[in-house]
Amino acid sequence: RRGEMAKLTQLIDNDVFRAYATYTAIVLLKMMLMSLITAYYRITRKAFANPEDTASFGKGESAKKYLRTDADVERVRRGHLNDLENIVPFLGIGLLYALSGPELSTALLHFRIFAGARIAHTFAYLIPLPQPGRGLSWAVGYAVTISMAYRVLSSVLYL
Amino acid sequence: RRGEMAKLTQLIDNDVFRAYATYTAIVLLKMMLMSLITAYYRITRKAFANPEDTASFGKGESAKKYLRTDADVERVRRGHLNDLENIVPFLGIGLLYALSGPELSTALLHFRIFAGARIAHTFAYLIPLPQPGRGLSWAVGYAVTISMAYRVLSSVLYL
Amino acid sequence: RRGEMAKLTQLIDNDVFRAYATYTAIVLLKMMLMSLITAYYRITRKAFANPEDTASFGKGESAKKYLRTDADVERVRRGHLNDLENIVPFLGIGLLYALSGPELSTALLHFRIFAGARIAHTFAYLIPLPQPGRGLSWAVGYAVTISMAYRVLSSVLYL
Repeated sequence: RRGEMAKLTQLIDNDVFRAYATYTAIVLLKMMLMSLITAYYRITRKAFANPEDTASFGKGESAKKYLRTDADVERVRRGHLNDLENIVPFLGIGLLYALSGPELSTALLHFRIFAGARIAHTFAYLIPLPQPGRGLSWAVGYAVTISMAYRVLSSVLYL
Repeated sequence: RRGEMAKLTQLIDNDVFRAYATYTAIVLLKMMLMSLITAYYRITRKAFANPEDTASFGKGESAKKYLRTDADVERVRRGHLNDLENIVPFLGIGLLYALSGPELSTALLHFRIFAGARIAHTFAYLIPLPQPGRGLSWAVGYAVTISMAYRVLSSVLYL
Repeated sequence: RRGEMAKLTQLIDNDVFRAYATYTAIVLLKMMLMSLITAYYRITRKAFANPEDTASFGKGESAKKYLRTDADVERVRRGHLNDLENIVPFLGIGLLYALSGPELSTALLHFRIFAGARIAHTFAYLIPLPQPGRGLSWAVGYAVTISMAYRVLSSVLYL
């Protein structure tokens, strides 16, 4: 048992893997924050998707009017889905990249730019900033993931 | 080759990692079940999203009327998306947590509560149960993931 | 430091893990491609979701008419969401499967069929092919993931 734990500790003690763990936790927590922002807008805008969510506003027609879409709620939901579409590839490709033995400084550059780009994307979406603010922040995160995928495929390719 | 396999086996033989693997497989299979439930409702409610899916009901107007949304289908789809939004963070943060060397009993507590909360969330969504049933089951899974993220960041932080 | 790197290299040098890394990178890149296809259709069909995206078409009513849904855009988006629903389970269950020590030939069979099925699914969705083309390609990828989950649970189960 002590031997096994030692091996696991070696993985988590590797600096590149620690950096991956840190930035992955950060972007996943940022993505999770979108759920709270959606809930906040649903409650303040009184715009719900499920009849059982409006039961506290009374019965029948008086509650039914809150079963509706709201522009602010939909905006947060689009941001949340965009997170899923971009952070899932980072989660998988970033892990493989971290295990492919990159230089620590190069790895940190990738992780930091990705996390910064996704945080900027969220602000650009929610404020909202005029384009190309959101588009650029999306593209930067996308390019970082492609760069890591290139490194993974060129170092481990086994078809 | 034998040496490499031995090293991999050490990872999968670690009890915390085995528990992570077990509960991750369970919640991912549960999430996959949502696809089958969606298909079941689409077929029984005759509510499809793609014209090619309704071709077996005839041509032209007779088939077109099945290109529609249905309350039951949409309910399952919302549950499926909520799974993605919550199980993806568990997948990533849970892996890092399992590698951070927690006590087995603490890790099992986290994994069991998370899996239980997500299963409860599905029942609450599909039956549906009155609120705050669904809200509470969502919040419990969310809190477990935050707790694991806190442990990951406090033990490996490398910015 | 050299010792740690050697350990990480052992993971990434394992043939089954290299195959997992290769096919995971491929299906994640394929999923990322859906973002570009969505952007292509949004621009060529002039169908956007956010007011700030239509600002370059002028102000007021002249730009507002481009805030609309388009059948081609929605089709790509459904394909993208289906990727998320199916590639996320592959990402997690495939990793655990690769660590469970399967035969290389068996693992390659799983990974190759999954990747082929998801690429076929995308073509079936976007062309679109008549059913059951899309349904079958979806079911093949789903069955491969179930097969890997069965192997994971039967080899590591720790409840």
